[in-house]
Amino acid sequence: MDKIAHYRAIVQQLMTEYANYGSGSPSDRTVEQELIWDEKNDRYLLLTLGWKNNNHRIYNCFIHLEIRDGKVWIQRNMTDVDLAEELVAQGIAKQDIVLGLHSPFKRQFTDYAVS
Amino acid sequence: MDKIAHYRAIVQQLMTEYANYGSGSPSDRTVEQELIWDEKNDRYLLLTLGWKNNNHRIYNCFIHLEIRDGKVWIQRNMTDVDLAEELVAQGIAKQDIVLGLHSPFKRQFTDYAVS
Repeated sequence: MDKIAHYRAIVQQLMTEYANYGSGSPSDRTVEQELIWDEKNDRYLLLTLGWKNNNHRIYNCFIHLEIRDGKVWIQRNMTDVDLAEELVAQGIAKQDIVLGLHSPFKRQFTDYAVS
Repeated sequence: MDKIAHYRAIVQQLMTEYANYGSGSPSDRTVEQELIWDEKNDRYLLLTLGWKNNNHRIYNCFIHLEIRDGKVWIQRNMTDVDLAEELVAQGIAKQDIVLGLHSPFKRQFTDYAVS
């Protein structure tokens, strides 16, 4: 398996796991979790959306990972898990992970890629 | 063409048009527009994301359309365009459009579908 296919498998597996964690009870169908699966562009998002008490709109992307030029970008992470560490644990090299949610200036002071 | 395929073509065409409008100048690559294309689930999103002045994070979904059970849901619209009207103009029946961004309570007072 080439590197990108390997990284894609890891990202897809991780997104699927997180989507399953949070699927919630079927009774609470007013606020749903959506897994967005854009395999064409290698972009994967997890959203929460719906209506709370019929009057409060919920719309939030809490995880967004994508693969660009062979690197995995973390564009969004509203969980308390260190997704970069998890990606490393799964076998993605640090220099192939970009912390998109940190400013380009900050990225140079980490072991992860700048872009 | 069956109804869903027809609606899908309209939604995809509209998303592609909006993605092209906002693509901006190539010089401004620090804030990008992303078209998320989840054809498997018929979910289409337009995001703006990146870094402004290298210290201010931009992450916003400004359009999110999806097809569920033969109906087109508008889940997000941060533009000043009435997307429902535009979908109707393109040939989608009002009773096949759900204003997900309006509360379920409010929807009953429109000509659009409640769910």
